[in-house]
Amino acid sequence: MPFFELHSEAKGVGPRAGVLHTDHGDILTPIFMPVGTVGTVKGVHRTQLEEDIKAQIILGNTYHLFLRPGTQILRRAGGLHKFEGWNRPILTDSGGFQVFSLTDIRKMNEEGVRFSSHIDGRKLMFTPENVMDIQREIGADIMMAFDECCPGTADRTYAKDSMDRTHRWLDRCIAQFDSTDDLYGYKQHLFPIAQGCTYPELRQDACKRLRDLDRDGYAIGGLAVGEPTEVMYSMIEVCNDILPQDKPRYLMGVGTPWNILEAISRGVDMFDCVMPTRNGRNGMIFTWQGVMNMRNKKWEDDFSPLDPYGTSFVDSAYTRAYVRHLIHAEEMLGLEILSIHNLAFYLDLVGQARQHILAGDYASWMDSVMPNITRRL
Amino acid sequence: MPFFELHSEAKGVGPRAGVLHTDHGDILTPIFMPVGTVGTVKGVHRTQLEEDIKAQIILGNTYHLFLRPGTQILRRAGGLHKFEGWNRPILTDSGGFQVFSLTDIRKMNEEGVRFSSHIDGRKLMFTPENVMDIQREIGADIMMAFDECCPGTADRTYAKDSMDRTHRWLDRCIAQFDSTDDLYGYKQHLFPIAQGCTYPELRQDACKRLRDLDRDGYAIGGLAVGEPTEVMYSMIEVCNDILPQDKPRYLMGVGTPWNILEAISRGVDMFDCVMPTRNGRNGMIFTWQGVMNMRNKKWEDDFSPLDPYGTSFVDSAYTRAYVRHLIHAEEMLGLEILSIHNLAFYLDLVGQARQHILAGDYASWMDSVMPNITRRL
Repeated sequence: MPFFELHSEAKGVGPRAGVLHTDHGDILTPIFMPVGTVGTVKGVHRTQLEEDIKAQIILGNTYHLFLRPGTQILRRAGGLHKFEGWNRPILTDSGGFQVFSLTDIRKMNEEGVRFSSHIDGRKLMFTPENVMDIQREIGADIMMAFDECCPGTADRTYAKDSMDRTHRWLDRCIAQFDSTDDLYGYKQHLFPIAQGCTYPELRQDACKRLRDLDRDGYAIGGLAVGEPTEVMYSMIEVCNDILPQDKPRYLMGVGTPWNILEAISRGVDMFDCVMPTRNGRNGMIFTWQGVMNMRNKKWEDDFSPLDPYGTSFVDSAYTRAYVRHLIHAEEMLGLEILSIHNLAFYLDLVGQARQHILAGDYASWMDSVMPNITRRL
Repeated sequence: MPFFELHSEAKGVGPRAGVLHTDHGDILTPIFMPVGTVGTVKGVHRTQLEEDIKAQIILGNTYHLFLRPGTQILRRAGGLHKFEGWNRPILTDSGGFQVFSLTDIRKMNEEGVRFSSHIDGRKLMFTPENVMDIQREIGADIMMAFDECCPGTADRTYAKDSMDRTHRWLDRCIAQFDSTDDLYGYKQHLFPIAQGCTYPELRQDACKRLRDLDRDGYAIGGLAVGEPTEVMYSMIEVCNDILPQDKPRYLMGVGTPWNILEAISRGVDMFDCVMPTRNGRNGMIFTWQGVMNMRNKKWEDDFSPLDPYGTSFVDSAYTRAYVRHLIHAEEMLGLEILSIHNLAFYLDLVGQARQHILAGDYASWMDSVMPNITRRL
């Protein structure tokens, strides 16, 4: 059985529906992956992830898990799945994004990146080789190559040098990955990442190099990092025009519901983003009827259900007035409710997108929902 | 049907099992009431309260609910039950404890207490009369009389004056309560509170005055506020020796699991305390095998279930090593797990106490579990 199968006819860079077969179960695409930074999707029980949010795969952050609980504990636990009690697939990022964005003191050279832990200042180093080993030890079903996430505002020279370095690092990642074994008895997959900032010819160059590697899947990195949205959409098209049709494509760290629908329309299969949980914790929710800021006074005496079109129990169990009260009173339960709501909405969003791709009416469906989901309620 | 029925023979100040009949359902005693300060038991979904913790009644804080969301919103919602979606009984405190302990600027006189909101500094006042009205508006099944919670270190003169004032306030509470109607169609009950600090003759005086009032139930207040534990137990005996056998007795704000078992052995029926949730948020859990500080290094690679004797899903769903990791990483999920565990343990504790009272072997059972529940693991 191939790792990835398409369930719809792939048309150029158009939308596609498919399935990823992993040893921890199938993932129907397009899919959104909730972010479980430090071994937990913030504030959410795994029963809620499974039954209410209907997550098919979650993401773990290599940087955070490497610092805490550390690979020694994870190995003794038998990997992250057993440590956190999650039996469905897990994807880990490479840690690159975090060492470049979270740590003040870092020094990059050809070998890798030296950095200080944001927790205790310990001096540490990520190299293409040890990042492969760490992700093996975490036990990710899908591992990401170690890359430099180039700022969206980088000049062409920096972007080219950065991309070239990322590809030299990729060669070392592949060498290390291919010479090491799956650690816990199930198959682990490696996805290379296409960088190239906002320069089409760099993105093309990156994607051509990746295409020739014949790996299990590919990611588009370095987008949604400060560039205009239209530029991001354009870069996705440039990449997906070259990346092979028969391999899954993962757009890293994107984004709003409308970003996701636009990216699906351009042939992206996989997404992750902290927005549903982070915005939820700030009182903002996404719904099929629009964006709601639950802090607003307008919800103060609105005793109707949180979201009549929502799919999770919180949408009918709690009223808008009650949720507004919880957010204002800074009660933990408010954050929990909105995180569950937003994640369930994101999963419903990609699930409905998949249905419309299979039905052949994705473009018109997307046009019909866009005015609603983007408005402010 | 009487409000309270005893299921066991009441022997002096010995342990008793009974039932409270409220319009929101029956409550089997002895019972522990989780504290839902501002309209939520911190971090806990009401489905978890019902199904996992098996709470039969929860407590709301009049002071907090008066400030936020306020009685106007609660009235429009149809009361706190509807506002928070909880259909089982609710007890509210009188707000007295909070205005005396939480607010810096307060001024007490015969009329009541002037204080400033800890949220926005608004100048407000609690009187026996408006505290009755506020609890009517919140919609508590059981309302508490407005009292002064006298510090455990008060001298006899202060304690006597304070108790006398509390009884004058009680007369006004009763007058207001008896001249106003249940607001939402179900019966509301008023419990007077016995004060008297650590002076046996003041406690006796207070309880004799309460006994003659023939209200639906009585509370023992002003304990666990700094006095030695043995003094607290002694005061409970003094009170319960006088309070009527056929009325429920509520020991306010107490305490540890062993405090609760000791108080049950002295004839207390109802308890509330923030300890299970607050200590849970600090990483401490109570179990049948002892107290565990989940921050400790000893749990770092203990991949056994959190509590093999626990009754809630978190006890088997999560390992000690994982919970320790969550607490160290300051992840919200850790606080949620430990709050659920501790509350479920408290409900299991009083539930098992009830079984042994009915079986007639409470004293020997208590002696057998005390060494275990009090030790540090």
